[in-house]
Amino acid sequence: MSSADRTYDVVVLGAGPTGENLADVVVRGGLSAVLVEEHLVGGECSYYACMPSKALLRGTEALAAARTVQGAAAAVTGEQDVAATLARRDSFTHDWDDTGQVDWVAGAGIDLVRGTARLDGERAVVVTTPDGGRVRLTARHAVAVCTGSEPAVPPVAGLDGVQPWTPREATGAKEAPRRLLVVGGGYVGCELSFAWHALGSRVTLLQRGGRLLPDAEPQAGDAVLASLRDRGVDVRLDADVTAARREDDEVVLTVGGEEVRGDEVLVATGRQARTTAIGADTVGLEPGRYLDVDDTLRVRGLPWLYGAGDVNGRRLLTHMGKYQARQAGAAIVARARGEEVSGADWSPHTATADRAATPAVVFTDPQVASVGLTSAQAREAGLPHRVVEYPIGSVAGAALLADGYEGTAVAVVDPGREVLLGVTFVGPAVAELLHAATIAVVGEVPISRLWHAVPAYPTVSEVWLRLLETWRG
Amino acid sequence: MSSADRTYDVVVLGAGPTGENLADVVVRGGLSAVLVEEHLVGGECSYYACMPSKALLRGTEALAAARTVQGAAAAVTGEQDVAATLARRDSFTHDWDDTGQVDWVAGAGIDLVRGTARLDGERAVVVTTPDGGRVRLTARHAVAVCTGSEPAVPPVAGLDGVQPWTPREATGAKEAPRRLLVVGGGYVGCELSFAWHALGSRVTLLQRGGRLLPDAEPQAGDAVLASLRDRGVDVRLDADVTAARREDDEVVLTVGGEEVRGDEVLVATGRQARTTAIGADTVGLEPGRYLDVDDTLRVRGLPWLYGAGDVNGRRLLTHMGKYQARQAGAAIVARARGEEVSGADWSPHTATADRAATPAVVFTDPQVASVGLTSAQAREAGLPHRVVEYPIGSVAGAALLADGYEGTAVAVVDPGREVLLGVTFVGPAVAELLHAATIAVVGEVPISRLWHAVPAYPTVSEVWLRLLETWRG
Repeated sequence: MSSADRTYDVVVLGAGPTGENLADVVVRGGLSAVLVEEHLVGGECSYYACMPSKALLRGTEALAAARTVQGAAAAVTGEQDVAATLARRDSFTHDWDDTGQVDWVAGAGIDLVRGTARLDGERAVVVTTPDGGRVRLTARHAVAVCTGSEPAVPPVAGLDGVQPWTPREATGAKEAPRRLLVVGGGYVGCELSFAWHALGSRVTLLQRGGRLLPDAEPQAGDAVLASLRDRGVDVRLDADVTAARREDDEVVLTVGGEEVRGDEVLVATGRQARTTAIGADTVGLEPGRYLDVDDTLRVRGLPWLYGAGDVNGRRLLTHMGKYQARQAGAAIVARARGEEVSGADWSPHTATADRAATPAVVFTDPQVASVGLTSAQAREAGLPHRVVEYPIGSVAGAALLADGYEGTAVAVVDPGREVLLGVTFVGPAVAELLHAATIAVVGEVPISRLWHAVPAYPTVSEVWLRLLETWRG
Repeated sequence: MSSADRTYDVVVLGAGPTGENLADVVVRGGLSAVLVEEHLVGGECSYYACMPSKALLRGTEALAAARTVQGAAAAVTGEQDVAATLARRDSFTHDWDDTGQVDWVAGAGIDLVRGTARLDGERAVVVTTPDGGRVRLTARHAVAVCTGSEPAVPPVAGLDGVQPWTPREATGAKEAPRRLLVVGGGYVGCELSFAWHALGSRVTLLQRGGRLLPDAEPQAGDAVLASLRDRGVDVRLDADVTAARREDDEVVLTVGGEEVRGDEVLVATGRQARTTAIGADTVGLEPGRYLDVDDTLRVRGLPWLYGAGDVNGRRLLTHMGKYQARQAGAAIVARARGEEVSGADWSPHTATADRAATPAVVFTDPQVASVGLTSAQAREAGLPHRVVEYPIGSVAGAALLADGYEGTAVAVVDPGREVLLGVTFVGPAVAELLHAATIAVVGEVPISRLWHAVPAYPTVSEVWLRLLETWRG
């Protein structure tokens, strides 16, 4: 048991990708920074979310791609080696060992304190270390909360008692459960239904609403639903889980008066801010709530406190957390230097893309890649818009990529400014099509100029030309 | 044998993708148009170039992708079915039947005359039809020459006599030759070396210069060379072919005093304008030369004559021909209406991208996808520039895509304006990364704004973030 007091320019709570990036930016800007982490350095994404889930899916995707090319299909005569796929997944999570990340932190000139951090009034943080010691950290300029989010288990009778899988257990499982129940048809539920079905589980996906991926363009949820059902996943829409219990080794869910049985149940119905135990009350904030921040990611009313990443609830995506980290870090450095900080959209100090141009990829088959506003979001915001749609399979490059390629591109256009507000691609291997749309939306490149951005023939990207032609009518 | 005189607003020579698109644009603009074609409607690209060559390569690519994912690799136990791959290739060329294209032309409201077209003075074209008849076509507004290009056989003693393959025969072959000699290490020679090697040929690639893909960033040619050699293609650089002869069924090439033997030889050393037989002399032009056009694709000195696509020599790529067709078509329509035509860069009537932002993909393994200026081109043009390079394999999304992913991204930046002048990606499956770069270059999106274009995690597109970080230093 030890005790110490230390002062840094910036104290960062949470060493996930957001905290790491924020600390890196401020250190590059000449400030000193310390990261506090109670669990693994590298965060949820590296060990329990993006990386392992995509690793579980990639082998299935690669084989599906080969099977849809006449001539190549003949070579795919065997089955995926599930143990090897799980071993590959483990290699990406480094078997949940964070040595590499710790080395990176040290190399970046960032200090690291392991332990549980609590705010303790203005610019002060108290860390309880694993050995029961106490470290008091004081920030000259800023404290940044990057503690992220955690799964929210819905208030279903008995659900806590069945020890449901969260995404952590579902991405880390050492073998495929015989029967997997998945509660929640958002991107996590859909991706993991695909993954475990392909790796041998009998999967039942229970979605409360009438559509999968309800935040995406409707073409996305419809296509993913059809594909899941086509390969034998039992997808039930409008399926409200009202009770849960264990019977011996079985999980039993009550769904609309019926019972559904499985060996494991994954609950993927949403997340909540990880602010319960950070001493929020010592600075006048309500524990458990998302931090309310301005576009420089500064908590309103507390000029020394920042909240970046999931913890502010703006966009719960790793890459947007990292983006916010870069912007918040730049704002902290500028303010520490007494420089002016611009709060304007697209400035070096503000997060703008997380309102206007957030990219997201759902790694199902078909994939769903989207950026900016959907047609529904444009409608709800009362923005003038026109929707342009094109079947990707009609593009020569898509036909070359896969026999019978099916997909859809949807663009939401501001008809006054003639710029793109949002784009969604649904189809196999569309993930890498997305960044073109992101640059077009973020760059506010007018359609008149996009006509000069010629897609190479014969690539799938030629769908851009078709969208422009469809827009022109 | 028949004879007829007809008048149209626009007469188009050549019904490849460029001619088809140009005719389509002017008809949509309210003008009448006729296409003249002596061979297949749809052009070189559909039947003899892009489509069949990519169809030959795709199966190999899909299998290579699956083999580089641990877990999936176990399922790829068989061999590619070469006959099925060739059958798939044939399905894309519709067995060299152009009925579908002819139907499209009719549906688009474009007339079609089959036969050989010759200019016959101002705004006049004489067509000799297959039955020996004559049709005289007069253009009210414009004649557009879209006759494309044809392979140029280099002046090597005896080469004509060995009946070398052109890209036509090399993409259309009904079986893999046992030993294939390839002369020329540009994109055609490289792609077809990969294709036929994978389909069973023993390939020798002879490149006159010291590097493959000499017009690309050097990283491209180096990577393609290493990969070809790694899989057993005999690549010889600085290999000057000085003589050719046939001995029984063998082709024998003399290369630097040595003899190289094969069963077929593909000559892919360059192309020349298809203007020898179009009556160029009747309007004061020199037959066999590329047409000298301005940025509206109008032949200098002949205000009624346009040249779009390969025939003007600006950029010999299908997609750039189609782009020129759209711009030329818009200029023809505007001038026919008496509207002002802007010759400014990026106007609706000018081809600008073919000077500043031409995208191109080489479908080898690794692929090479590039747009805009290479570092060498920027240097030769005397433009201030800085080169930024990043190894794509260090991106999490690339590691997920393929075990041991190797690739390089190279960006050429204008340090004054802080915009991208050009980008090259070298690596597996980079083709669809390109359009993001094309939009960034064409849209002249400043780097300060590109920081807000967040790549989705974990995609290969995250290389964009790494390039920006490397630029910032």
